[in-house]
Amino acid sequence: MNTPLYLPVSSRSMASKTQVGFIGLGNMGKPMAKNLLKHGYPVIATDIFPESCKELQELGAQIVDNPAEVADQADRVVTMLPSSPNVIEVYTGPNGILKKVKKGSLLIDSSTIDPAVSKEMAVAAEKMGAVFMDAPVSGGVGAASSGKLTFMVGGVEEEFTAAQELLTCMGANVVYCGAVGTGQAAKICNNMLLAIGMIGTSETMNLGIRLGLDPKLLAKILNMSSGRCWSSDTYNPVPGVMEGVPSGNNYQGGFGTQLMAKDLGLAQTTATNTKTPVPLGSLAHQIYRMMCARGYSGKDFSSVFQFLREDEENEGA
Amino acid sequence: MNTPLYLPVSSRSMASKTQVGFIGLGNMGKPMAKNLLKHGYPVIATDIFPESCKELQELGAQIVDNPAEVADQADRVVTMLPSSPNVIEVYTGPNGILKKVKKGSLLIDSSTIDPAVSKEMAVAAEKMGAVFMDAPVSGGVGAASSGKLTFMVGGVEEEFTAAQELLTCMGANVVYCGAVGTGQAAKICNNMLLAIGMIGTSETMNLGIRLGLDPKLLAKILNMSSGRCWSSDTYNPVPGVMEGVPSGNNYQGGFGTQLMAKDLGLAQTTATNTKTPVPLGSLAHQIYRMMCARGYSGKDFSSVFQFLREDEENEGA
Amino acid sequence: MNTPLYLPVSSRSMASKTQVGFIGLGNMGKPMAKNLLKHGYPVIATDIFPESCKELQELGAQIVDNPAEVADQADRVVTMLPSSPNVIEVYTGPNGILKKVKKGSLLIDSSTIDPAVSKEMAVAAEKMGAVFMDAPVSGGVGAASSGKLTFMVGGVEEEFTAAQELLTCMGANVVYCGAVGTGQAAKICNNMLLAIGMIGTSETMNLGIRLGLDPKLLAKILNMSSGRCWSSDTYNPVPGVMEGVPSGNNYQGGFGTQLMAKDLGLAQTTATNTKTPVPLGSLAHQIYRMMCARGYSGKDFSSVFQFLREDEENEGA
Amino acid sequence: MNTPLYLPVSSRSMASKTQVGFIGLGNMGKPMAKNLLKHGYPVIATDIFPESCKELQELGAQIVDNPAEVADQADRVVTMLPSSPNVIEVYTGPNGILKKVKKGSLLIDSSTIDPAVSKEMAVAAEKMGAVFMDAPVSGGVGAASSGKLTFMVGGVEEEFTAAQELLTCMGANVVYCGAVGTGQAAKICNNMLLAIGMIGTSETMNLGIRLGLDPKLLAKILNMSSGRCWSSDTYNPVPGVMEGVPSGNNYQGGFGTQLMAKDLGLAQTTATNTKTPVPLGSLAHQIYRMMCARGYSGKDFSSVFQFLREDEENEGA
Repeated sequence: MNTPLYLPVSSRSMASKTQVGFIGLGNMGKPMAKNLLKHGYPVIATDIFPESCKELQELGAQIVDNPAEVADQADRVVTMLPSSPNVIEVYTGPNGILKKVKKGSLLIDSSTIDPAVSKEMAVAAEKMGAVFMDAPVSGGVGAASSGKLTFMVGGVEEEFTAAQELLTCMGANVVYCGAVGTGQAAKICNNMLLAIGMIGTSETMNLGIRLGLDPKLLAKILNMSSGRCWSSDTYNPVPGVMEGVPSGNNYQGGFGTQLMAKDLGLAQTTATNTKTPVPLGSLAHQIYRMMCARGYSGKDFSSVFQFLREDEENEGA
Repeated sequence: MNTPLYLPVSSRSMASKTQVGFIGLGNMGKPMAKNLLKHGYPVIATDIFPESCKELQELGAQIVDNPAEVADQADRVVTMLPSSPNVIEVYTGPNGILKKVKKGSLLIDSSTIDPAVSKEMAVAAEKMGAVFMDAPVSGGVGAASSGKLTFMVGGVEEEFTAAQELLTCMGANVVYCGAVGTGQAAKICNNMLLAIGMIGTSETMNLGIRLGLDPKLLAKILNMSSGRCWSSDTYNPVPGVMEGVPSGNNYQGGFGTQLMAKDLGLAQTTATNTKTPVPLGSLAHQIYRMMCARGYSGKDFSSVFQFLREDEENEGA
Repeated sequence: MNTPLYLPVSSRSMASKTQVGFIGLGNMGKPMAKNLLKHGYPVIATDIFPESCKELQELGAQIVDNPAEVADQADRVVTMLPSSPNVIEVYTGPNGILKKVKKGSLLIDSSTIDPAVSKEMAVAAEKMGAVFMDAPVSGGVGAASSGKLTFMVGGVEEEFTAAQELLTCMGANVVYCGAVGTGQAAKICNNMLLAIGMIGTSETMNLGIRLGLDPKLLAKILNMSSGRCWSSDTYNPVPGVMEGVPSGNNYQGGFGTQLMAKDLGLAQTTATNTKTPVPLGSLAHQIYRMMCARGYSGKDFSSVFQFLREDEENEGA
Repeated sequence: MNTPLYLPVSSRSMASKTQVGFIGLGNMGKPMAKNLLKHGYPVIATDIFPESCKELQELGAQIVDNPAEVADQADRVVTMLPSSPNVIEVYTGPNGILKKVKKGSLLIDSSTIDPAVSKEMAVAAEKMGAVFMDAPVSGGVGAASSGKLTFMVGGVEEEFTAAQELLTCMGANVVYCGAVGTGQAAKICNNMLLAIGMIGTSETMNLGIRLGLDPKLLAKILNMSSGRCWSSDTYNPVPGVMEGVPSGNNYQGGFGTQLMAKDLGLAQTTATNTKTPVPLGSLAHQIYRMMCARGYSGKDFSSVFQFLREDEENEGA
């Protein structure tokens, strides 16, 4: 890459802590932006809901009207948005980042979206002389608050160090995954396998209990055997088997069924687009979709155990 | 249990190493019986295929004609058979164990079968004053040879110590699971979750590779995240990701697709009988069944990665 | 078949209407037995619930204590029982038909059970010199009352005429399917495909409605196209599309979800036993199983449309 | 709609047969355009592959360089393209229809694509004062040649008559489905249910055959019962059951597995976007995807019977 369209890293003022832009101050974005402030970065931020900006403003962040203005004043911008259309709007819309982005800017998108959209954004950014990287996170609101997120980063390898500098303020692990879009790919892959493991663990625990096994003992046996997975040994969906997980708290908190359904929808879309068979991932998607239709949207995704289990009122069924 | 039909443990001559019966000298049974010999137990054995008995006979085992004769001479008998009908025949058939079983005998079945059949055998044994325990194994032929099997044991708790004495000669772990049938239940549950995890890992790795991720890197990311499972971190199905697993050896060795399909059939049957929904387990069963129909019966069950992946000759598809 | 164990047809007194036995006077059995009475056959009947016998007794049927006594007095016996274990008990139990069956008797089982059990019963009957045929029905309580059932009959072809004579009193169609067990096979196959068609129609109608199509118009388009099936054109699951079907009556009446789950369980078991992949049939089974766990047991099986559709209260999901 | 952006129908010269544009002269488009010529319409056409235009040119059509030139000369344009990206390019690309479309033009897209894209095209066309309708077809190359296609049409109702005039030259049925996108919705819904019915019929026939039923007899029983569907009674997938269908010709001809996989991908995408659970449709998609990976891309979609059936060489499995 002899004649990069974007300026080399050194041209950005990394040594001194200059302004960092932040767009999207929702449940995840707000604590992430706070952690940037905490690490001494001046933050310039915006959100479509003005009330979301208030707390950050009180903490010293500068609030502006729209993404274009953020990009006008900061040459490093982090975005944290709900879905692909929001990302497209924030980057390429009439008041989007790319309207006023400076040459050489580093644009890091931590939203979980279709990797194909990440690639489009990267191409559009490159045309403006800027660098786009996808850096979706794993870990929920708690990890965002405590700065313990994991970032999976896709983009040109030369810029990874620059991204890492910012991301380590907000996360405990920052993993380089490869070309643009591979951060999203890694996130989507992990969550698809997570969903499969969680439903599988729930079915298995339910079956074992019905066959007369004590749930704690069954979990112990699985966890020392080849059935072991994160959902069985770290986040067991059966109430009473483990402490400190949503199954012990009526499936409150944690990672909502609706969010899992969204991520599985992304997995499904990328699988369809790449003609990849994902039979269990696809069925997992459908099961979480059925759960949303039956009132489980807001419960932790481990509530699939409850969904599959016979209601007490239906015992005779 | 004030007046047990079976005699108390002490009546069996456990201190001195008296004869142990062994029925079923197949791929698994033969090395298991050898380990009993190695530990100093006189073995009296039988198998429907006379040639299977030859090697054991040369090692000093006494060979008799049928299960009834084994039970006539040994008050501890281990059975290791392919499927439920074989177990029914060996226990209750015209030359079956129960025809000549001594009061107080301990009958340990290490076959993997329907737990409902285990319960029937236990009832039939109890009527004859004998004790039946189910003790299916995990670990393949290699573990059987090296005495490193895991036994999952169901049956009356008072007899577990007696069973354990024999089973520790053949295995590294002997786990008490609960009432009769729970050993089978634990085995079936583990293998169902294993199959789900393996197919899920295969789909996920395949999707990630198509999305541009390096397979080793993807495995590393999954294994430090919530997608982690035994199939991703210990038995990865993608050739080249790990060493010493069947995926590195053209899916030779390991645990055959046909055997997995059999275990998933048991899981399906017990789920149907207990009216338990097992959507992913059920689809896993169907996928292994389709693989058997397409020529994968003899390959390791991790070959589902190969099955789901596009053939080179079908690249254009 | 030179020397049949059973006596030839002519030895049974078919010309005159001699007593016909009937065992199992439940929702289906009672109206069936009534139709035999209506056609002039003296009926001798029994049921484990004495109160079930009362109405039939008032109509002139002779009630006896158990299946053995029925078989002792009638050389043609029809059984209509809930499941395989009941059939095994009624035929081979201590007071079972085979304890007192007369040589040459014709035993017709209209229960829906595992065809493997039908075959076992046929072998057991043949040992006693009797003929067993399986003749499960399609059509519900309404068709049983109006004598419009369809019988699918398996058994030796020479006896089909004799069976037909009785069955035509109770049904509009009597179809010969082949050897013993094939009546069950035909029933199971039909109901598996029915379940697949019903769930498929429900998904499709729901998707179309969400995409803006009028449900009646969509049904019309499907029914003139290749998507057409019995569930779309005769028993549409969407309220308001058709009249006179359970979807128009809050899914009351019709064929209960629990009964469909039972038949799909049989399909699953026979598929597992014959190593046949049935991926959609298997998933259909799981979906009806989940519905039973969520309170749909007693609703018509077309209520899967309601199950898959978003609740009004969950609209925001 | 008091002040339509598009001109009223009367402004188009419908009485006299003026030029009709046609874009996309593939397997389907070419015979469709020929039928327009046959009905006396002057045709002005284009295709990215010049050789595709040759035959049509010899028949009297005018060939131009790109979609914009077609739209410049014809105020009625039909497009028949492989997939959503092609439609987007042909309408909105640098040489696309909308660059030179005349006010009041009628643009009919017969491609099978995502209804969301149809809606986008309609909005874009309306901005230029033109009318866009989606009119995907059912029926294959044979029906295209003989003018027997079925068109499912979505768009403003006032323009349906104008569209119908052209479409009846190419099809036997022209069905108005509702607003823009509902033509696609109807097509996608039908094909999803078709795929479910075909796989379901294949599983069912295979299971019945293994249970000892004669395939012709089983088909007959299903077709007079509630299992009946188009795949069982009109396009049976079992070789020998029916004549004149691809199953009788080694699954040559008909509707390719790859095309079905594409349509199921669209169904999956629309279901994901509308958060609609489609469990069987989703699994059907995965099965056709697996078939493509295993070499079935070019075979008729009824070859799923062959895919699910045990290979002769795998009989022992």
